[in-house]
Amino acid sequence: MTATEIRDPAGWLARLRRRRALRERAGLGRTLRSRDPTENVLDLAGNDYLGLTRDPRVLSAAAEALTMYGAGAGGSRLVRGSTRLHAQLEQAVAHLLGQPAALVFSSGYLANLAAVAGVVGPGTVIVRDAHVHASLIDACRLTGAQTEVAAHADVTDLAAKLEKFSARPLVVVTESVFSVDGDLAPLREVHALCRRFGAILVVDDAHAVGILGPDGGGAVRAAGLADEPDVVVTATLSKAFGAAGGIVAGPTDFIDHLMQTARPFIYDTALPPAITAAAHAALGIIRHSPELRDSVRRRAATAAEFLRSQGLTVVRTPAAGILAVAAPTAEAAVQWAAACHAEQVAVGCFRPPSTPDPISRLRLTVNARLSEEDFAAAVRVVVATAPAGRVSSRRHVPGSDED
Amino acid sequence: MTATEIRDPAGWLARLRRRRALRERAGLGRTLRSRDPTENVLDLAGNDYLGLTRDPRVLSAAAEALTMYGAGAGGSRLVRGSTRLHAQLEQAVAHLLGQPAALVFSSGYLANLAAVAGVVGPGTVIVRDAHVHASLIDACRLTGAQTEVAAHADVTDLAAKLEKFSARPLVVVTESVFSVDGDLAPLREVHALCRRFGAILVVDDAHAVGILGPDGGGAVRAAGLADEPDVVVTATLSKAFGAAGGIVAGPTDFIDHLMQTARPFIYDTALPPAITAAAHAALGIIRHSPELRDSVRRRAATAAEFLRSQGLTVVRTPAAGILAVAAPTAEAAVQWAAACHAEQVAVGCFRPPSTPDPISRLRLTVNARLSEEDFAAAVRVVVATAPAGRVSSRRHVPGSDED
Ligand SMILES: Cc1ncc(COP(=O)(O)O)c(C=O)c1O
Ligand SMILES: Cc1ncc(COP(=O)(O)O)c(C=O)c1O
Repeated sequence: MTATEIRDPAGWLARLRRRRALRERAGLGRTLRSRDPTENVLDLAGNDYLGLTRDPRVLSAAAEALTMYGAGAGGSRLVRGSTRLHAQLEQAVAHLLGQPAALVFSSGYLANLAAVAGVVGPGTVIVRDAHVHASLIDACRLTGAQTEVAAHADVTDLAAKLEKFSARPLVVVTESVFSVDGDLAPLREVHALCRRFGAILVVDDAHAVGILGPDGGGAVRAAGLADEPDVVVTATLSKAFGAAGGIVAGPTDFIDHLMQTARPFIYDTALPPAITAAAHAALGIIRHSPELRDSVRRRAATAAEFLRSQGLTVVRTPAAGILAVAAPTAEAAVQWAAACHAEQVAVGCFRPPSTPDPISRLRLTVNARLSEEDFAAAVRVVVATAPAGRVSSRRHVPGSDED
Repeated sequence: MTATEIRDPAGWLARLRRRRALRERAGLGRTLRSRDPTENVLDLAGNDYLGLTRDPRVLSAAAEALTMYGAGAGGSRLVRGSTRLHAQLEQAVAHLLGQPAALVFSSGYLANLAAVAGVVGPGTVIVRDAHVHASLIDACRLTGAQTEVAAHADVTDLAAKLEKFSARPLVVVTESVFSVDGDLAPLREVHALCRRFGAILVVDDAHAVGILGPDGGGAVRAAGLADEPDVVVTATLSKAFGAAGGIVAGPTDFIDHLMQTARPFIYDTALPPAITAAAHAALGIIRHSPELRDSVRRRAATAAEFLRSQGLTVVRTPAAGILAVAAPTAEAAVQWAAACHAEQVAVGCFRPPSTPDPISRLRLTVNARLSEEDFAAAVRVVVATAPAGRVSSRRHVPGSDED
């Protein structure tokens, strides 16, 4: 870089434009498209698994809190932002997850930053699963701790990594249901290894809370790991709860520690009261709707079977409400998603770097508000619009269930 | 640490308890207290400067969006989370700030993480003001870039730091109105230095947008720096806007770059539609309420004068709606705040590490919903409850306006 280039105040923008052009050429450009509330679209893309975001009980709880408290929380939780609604939601979440205590954050992203920072101390080595969500990768980075990546869902590799650093304080970071492919981590085996090596286990249960486990209490509770002293759970209120916000749950001393010291808790405006109330109302519905929770899993499993029977590559066996279908190329994924949209079916289109490997995918989710018929019809659209020669387009996805 | 200690799965919790006890002993313990919506409290603690969080126009915009879209956005902005409301708010914010483009985030915290990461490249040196907000400190950390700290609002020190690293790509990070003491950065001089050294300037305008500048367009616009190609502005929708959410505004190529690549944008659920609508309604009110904006500044200035005349140490001259009063010790600050609360006046109590130096403070903010009389009465309560011998308790605050 020459001195004149440095001193051109717009020089950096030219570099951003060049990078944009490169991405476009590789089929990796992104565009923001607004969703129309009156659209007549079958939703296989959102994270409102249980269809609660428009549930009348959720909406009326939100409306009431809006009237009572106003639009915003007015400050951070420790200054003016805490209301009875936040405290009640925290109690209810802790109870649902089977954990001693919970803390609400303004997003799952910030909850993850706080949770990981809270378990890392001097000399800690973090071992994280290769497929964890961007927020967990950022969380590891932000701590500055040495971070090792274990092969996805591979307990042998995890054991080897923990063994290698067994003299150091250890933290293991994983998701339960992984956000892109929807598969489930071997939580019991992972926890057994943590126990053996004295590691603290952080599990992001974002895509399992509300769907898996007794009462919808999540995959950690389902695995019998709730209330273990060496397990910390994070989640979000933006998926099965149909609202927004993040959660950290775990031992009371740890939750108190976060309340006292976690920067993304202390220095962030509290979740708006209306959204807090919505999440709490959704939680009440979740507890008492076992059929709704079951139907999400069943639909995902049935869809995966059907898609495979039609010659498509379902990357991994879905454990909750997410599944991913491999596309031959990034461009093909974009075209496939566009063809679905043209048929009034919304699907997620995930391309690198939003995928854990170079394979672009359609990511499909279940929304229980769709009728069984509409859901089946939407899945048939995915098949009908698949890239030509889809059988021969089956890509080898490293480590997939079909290996 | 012995091997048995490592392997006790609850050992880390005992360490957290010991740290808690140490904090308590130093007067640095924190407690969550819920705010009661029917409370009869004079608010000198919140960030709802213009009193818009309960404005009927804000509430009805939020209620309408709640009915139309549901409680949550249903996904990330690039998947299912974008609505017309987000796009409209982004346009309106860009216009208000005098910037070519803007992007809405789910919080100001995440907006800061994205903005700083977006301007940092290989070899970048960041020079940040010593008093910047935790979210900006985390933002610098997360980039992994070498970060130098310049003395607070000290352009000579800033120039020296920039000179020292002038061969490297440079980024300067500051707030406009600082969040704890409420003073204003010398933005024009800071920008002139940035221009001289080819640095990109990131300004967090969180506490100025809605209060300072033409139309309430913030301190960057007030300084004539809107639409400069080497300036990026961040802000939050949780303060003067009375809602929640974050903003990054700046050159179109940069905003596009964030939309395409920023992890806290791509991998985070969109701001709920109701909160987005609330912020947009607030923005409309802000533009057309010059008296309201002026009254915030005037009240803060008048209060600072009065408090000083009563022998209290106002740490810095307030530029917008925040001022800070020094307390002799952390314990004294807690007792002082409690005495105010007992008189139905809510104040912020800031102790290390939430202060930029070891001085504990009461942090007072203006809420325009209070009548002039109530505001004056609340400030008198702060004086009346001040620690005994407050004149002799005046602490030397390094670098304060009274130096
Ligand atoms: C696994 C996982 N963790 C965390 C998050 C972040 O949660 P939020 O959107 O509430 O910030 C997401 C998605 O958004 C996710 O999929
Ligand atoms: C200067 C400054 N920047 C950023 C933030 C974070 O904004 P938010 O609360 O919307 O996350 C705050 C306060 O919360 C702040 O004071």
